[in-house]
Amino acid sequence: MKKQEFGAGIWHFATYLDRYATDGYGEPRTVIEAIELAGKVGDLSYVDINYPYFGGEFSNEEIKKSLDKAGLKVIGITPEIYTREFSKGAFTNPDPGVRKRAHELITEACDAVRFFNASYVKLWPGQDGWDYPFQVDHKTIWKNSMDGVGNLATENSDLKFVIEYKPREPRVKMIYDSMTRTLLGIEQIGLPNVGVLLDFGHAIYGGESAADSAQLAIDHGRLFGMDVNDNFRSWDDDLLAGSLHPIELFEFFYVLRKNNWQGVWQLDQFPFREDSVEMANTAIDFLKSVNRALDDLDYDALSKAQASHDAMGALKIAQKALYKHLARD
Amino acid sequence: MKKQEFGAGIWHFATYLDRYATDGYGEPRTVIEAIELAGKVGDLSYVDINYPYFGGEFSNEEIKKSLDKAGLKVIGITPEIYTREFSKGAFTNPDPGVRKRAHELITEACDAVRFFNASYVKLWPGQDGWDYPFQVDHKTIWKNSMDGVGNLATENSDLKFVIEYKPREPRVKMIYDSMTRTLLGIEQIGLPNVGVLLDFGHAIYGGESAADSAQLAIDHGRLFGMDVNDNFRSWDDDLLAGSLHPIELFEFFYVLRKNNWQGVWQLDQFPFREDSVEMANTAIDFLKSVNRALDDLDYDALSKAQASHDAMGALKIAQKALYKHLARD
Amino acid sequence: MKKQEFGAGIWHFATYLDRYATDGYGEPRTVIEAIELAGKVGDLSYVDINYPYFGGEFSNEEIKKSLDKAGLKVIGITPEIYTREFSKGAFTNPDPGVRKRAHELITEACDAVRFFNASYVKLWPGQDGWDYPFQVDHKTIWKNSMDGVGNLATENSDLKFVIEYKPREPRVKMIYDSMTRTLLGIEQIGLPNVGVLLDFGHAIYGGESAADSAQLAIDHGRLFGMDVNDNFRSWDDDLLAGSLHPIELFEFFYVLRKNNWQGVWQLDQFPFREDSVEMANTAIDFLKSVNRALDDLDYDALSKAQASHDAMGALKIAQKALYKHLARD
Amino acid sequence: MKKQEFGAGIWHFATYLDRYATDGYGEPRTVIEAIELAGKVGDLSYVDINYPYFGGEFSNEEIKKSLDKAGLKVIGITPEIYTREFSKGAFTNPDPGVRKRAHELITEACDAVRFFNASYVKLWPGQDGWDYPFQVDHKTIWKNSMDGVGNLATENSDLKFVIEYKPREPRVKMIYDSMTRTLLGIEQIGLPNVGVLLDFGHAIYGGESAADSAQLAIDHGRLFGMDVNDNFRSWDDDLLAGSLHPIELFEFFYVLRKNNWQGVWQLDQFPFREDSVEMANTAIDFLKSVNRALDDLDYDALSKAQASHDAMGALKIAQKALYKHLARD
Repeated sequence: MKKQEFGAGIWHFATYLDRYATDGYGEPRTVIEAIELAGKVGDLSYVDINYPYFGGEFSNEEIKKSLDKAGLKVIGITPEIYTREFSKGAFTNPDPGVRKRAHELITEACDAVRFFNASYVKLWPGQDGWDYPFQVDHKTIWKNSMDGVGNLATENSDLKFVIEYKPREPRVKMIYDSMTRTLLGIEQIGLPNVGVLLDFGHAIYGGESAADSAQLAIDHGRLFGMDVNDNFRSWDDDLLAGSLHPIELFEFFYVLRKNNWQGVWQLDQFPFREDSVEMANTAIDFLKSVNRALDDLDYDALSKAQASHDAMGALKIAQKALYKHLARD
Repeated sequence: MKKQEFGAGIWHFATYLDRYATDGYGEPRTVIEAIELAGKVGDLSYVDINYPYFGGEFSNEEIKKSLDKAGLKVIGITPEIYTREFSKGAFTNPDPGVRKRAHELITEACDAVRFFNASYVKLWPGQDGWDYPFQVDHKTIWKNSMDGVGNLATENSDLKFVIEYKPREPRVKMIYDSMTRTLLGIEQIGLPNVGVLLDFGHAIYGGESAADSAQLAIDHGRLFGMDVNDNFRSWDDDLLAGSLHPIELFEFFYVLRKNNWQGVWQLDQFPFREDSVEMANTAIDFLKSVNRALDDLDYDALSKAQASHDAMGALKIAQKALYKHLARD
Repeated sequence: MKKQEFGAGIWHFATYLDRYATDGYGEPRTVIEAIELAGKVGDLSYVDINYPYFGGEFSNEEIKKSLDKAGLKVIGITPEIYTREFSKGAFTNPDPGVRKRAHELITEACDAVRFFNASYVKLWPGQDGWDYPFQVDHKTIWKNSMDGVGNLATENSDLKFVIEYKPREPRVKMIYDSMTRTLLGIEQIGLPNVGVLLDFGHAIYGGESAADSAQLAIDHGRLFGMDVNDNFRSWDDDLLAGSLHPIELFEFFYVLRKNNWQGVWQLDQFPFREDSVEMANTAIDFLKSVNRALDDLDYDALSKAQASHDAMGALKIAQKALYKHLARD
Repeated sequence: MKKQEFGAGIWHFATYLDRYATDGYGEPRTVIEAIELAGKVGDLSYVDINYPYFGGEFSNEEIKKSLDKAGLKVIGITPEIYTREFSKGAFTNPDPGVRKRAHELITEACDAVRFFNASYVKLWPGQDGWDYPFQVDHKTIWKNSMDGVGNLATENSDLKFVIEYKPREPRVKMIYDSMTRTLLGIEQIGLPNVGVLLDFGHAIYGGESAADSAQLAIDHGRLFGMDVNDNFRSWDDDLLAGSLHPIELFEFFYVLRKNNWQGVWQLDQFPFREDSVEMANTAIDFLKSVNRALDDLDYDALSKAQASHDAMGALKIAQKALYKHLARD
């Protein structure tokens, strides 16, 4: 079994603003400062970095130097296809010029992926969708969604692309809104280098079981990445992983282990009002307990309980392993 | 263009019970009595009938006679694969004997479809899914879900099968929970005679745009049926069609018209506390207005607005047509 | 500190039906059979009993005898003001004759409370509310809701009445839908013998923090009872307590302990597809762990963390105590 | 009957940013520019203005001059008690120094209200609440919430204060989250100059019927203001009023009319991607139709239908009036 490795979106170590706190929840930080903070987290090995690099003009080399100093590698690059220019969509923008610009930006991000020898380009088309009934031609925008990804994957067949789906926000309705829609699109695109990044919080606030969604993606050979956090099931709160739904998060990792899924345990938390290093450490402690609990779990007994859909029995087996190792934290 | 035709689930004219009003919201009715009531609705042409026939022992011939008298045809047969025996699932039941019994029941329902020359067997696996984390092996139950439908469709290649998806209820989580999961499963089953029945209410309480879901199913060649109702977006309330979300319902029918979809406009309402004939008539009046509004809609102007994702412009065009014809009701 | 005592709604040991599984999730049971089952639960001391007694004609004496045999006492009586007759409301029914009948039924239930020397009459007006916009005059039905309770409390000043609020179901919208509306009504009624029963699941699926709601009710001197279960935050699933949201449930009990609230730890679970005795035992094991964790919790450290709204710090303190004792289960 | 007058939050004419589109959905505007845009809306008479004035340093006199030029008056002043400094709460901030600063800021806003002879100080404590279980002492923060408002209302007894409740955002959970909690708090504060501002969207996404909430606030003598918009019932989308839920919005205004409520019809829309003047005009057209429909509504027939909770009958009466006047738009 592969050693447990941890990652985080570099934005975990940024500060945030929203439509009300327009002055932000803290002093703005450059990506370099965020990397420095990330380096202070005990067991973090990977970061996912937004492109363009925030907070100034930085070369790939400067970023690399900073990462080396912090002991971090790059798992993926996330092109910012959800800023002002793309507010009516990147792949689905009604303006072909903007769609072209999205393509160019992502193509630049591809070079960054190559530079850092990262695992994938992460596509999170948060503005691609609609707000109102009748606003869009649904056939057109879905076609554009698939074409946009497909073209990139064809042109950059040396790289992997992951789509991170999410039900909504910032767009009132995102088109890549769920695991199953994303898989449906990926199968239609039909290329081997397009997969899914499953965000635990996106899954549960969309009404999915993250465990079920993971199994489905694995069975399609498309689970290329994942990250975790928590929320109150109605919005992408990006709270501390394990803080609200430890058992469902455990089931998610159980499915990964059972399928021998190998990959980085990433965090996508937004510490609006918390210390970001402490929050990352706290989450990682939780995830270490989860991993030990998975080492200790009675898989045979669990399978047997599941074979009869015995909820009480299965839960007891799972809880016993989980709580034992959480208690040792 | 085909004449607008209306249908309803025969359960629209039954009485209901729930876990609290265990004595029911009215005197129990036999399917024959329900058919008689359905016959009183002004413009109803079709019914979808549960199998076995409720309220007594009735032969297909007796049902037929009653339907003839009421001036009704059968659009589909809905085998009751969600009663006590199937409370832990029909296709996904842990007990292979129960899965077999579900297969047998649906096979009997196939004969009823043939007898009535109906359009399809409707599969609504309301108990197939799970309640708790860890309760099921997700891979197994999804495989069983597809195999169960696939076997039936293979054995009865002369018939169409429609899957009606729904997020939840009665099972806490249904496995055929959304349009995209259902399409994903159907594409994997890979048979031409399996399609989707889109229930407007199921779509919107699952966070879908019913218009978008319809377009997607049509593009996959899988929209075999539809029915309408309304709800508060958090549960399958089965309220009067058009009572809460007239504009979204209009967009749904706009997509059907634009794609030249031909089919029966069905009702899936549950008049727990209302007169069922009045409620059906009220919904049909609404649907007639919708149809006239679709005749009158400025498609070119709407397409133009949609081409720039102009929400205000598109909405005005749609509302103008809809309200004009609703006002004439 | 008072010894931890457990209770359950007697319906926990009944079988259920719903609008789909109209033949029920098991053979019907009489209240006597349900009491026998309840007696098999390890540490159950109290039951809340529906009135009229279900499954046959039973005298108070017969019930009492059965309870004695099972080693159970009655905590409350729940008049069934949500069956067919009351499907358009009990206190708010448009028909004054039905309102009167509700009053009479509850008055009979008062006598049962006296007979069993129970703690309260439980009012759960599940049909009082509305389904559609424009259906009701909101002023009238709210007045009737308060008058109905107020009259009973005045006429039976020797008894306590508890209102169990819930957002919805079976009515699409219940009028006593939340802790704060219920308190607002109770304060307007202005009688000392009317309080609230807080159901953990109702609170969380209504978007409340059950801990916060408990504190509020206590501060108004109105928390007369409580029961627990769990759900996916969008419906009253009545799942196993602690199965999904152990930390929030722990916070709820923490607030009770901190305020020195004395009362029975009741279950309101619906084991549709589970063994009811096993499910009760499993929940009680969880609640015992919670209680031991509350004995062990570092209240001073927690208060200090809360004084600075230190989420990470407070959670760690709480989790440490909870997981330690869950692990010992 | 008073002439129908329209207002809007001045932020309706600002541009926005969020945690993803950190460069904003358009070029930043000063409050002066926003006022100029507001002046271009056909029938706008009032604005609600954030304090401090955004986009620069402006004196009350400069604002006044700009408003006069645009033909606008001030209905209320909204102190910005939800920016960085207050990110852990204004009234409930753990730091008494921050609570003091909130008090001072609102006190300054009081002077602006006096200067403009506005109707009220609007308190929207969007950061007052919590994110995690165990994070806060619920008793303390609720007390602080009431004390904070009460002190201001006592010190400024010449002014009215309105609390605008909302379930969540930006705080994961807001403490003034619902109509009933806000009324409960206001009644406990016990001052005549504290009331509620009901935002239609906040009500419906919190699961309230806005009509019912309005009636309740009116019956308590506390409905001091209102504004409208629309959303998908799960978040404060601040979409175009009437775009999704026209019938429920009509019922809301019906309740206001029936109670002879006098006040400004305000907009709280966020045109992230729309032309703000067009969106305001579109909403106002809708509201004018609503007003004419209310003139035309058959109140006696509606009351009669409501007296028997006749949903179908009541809806038909309401729809007839509404659609007739929407069709004339």
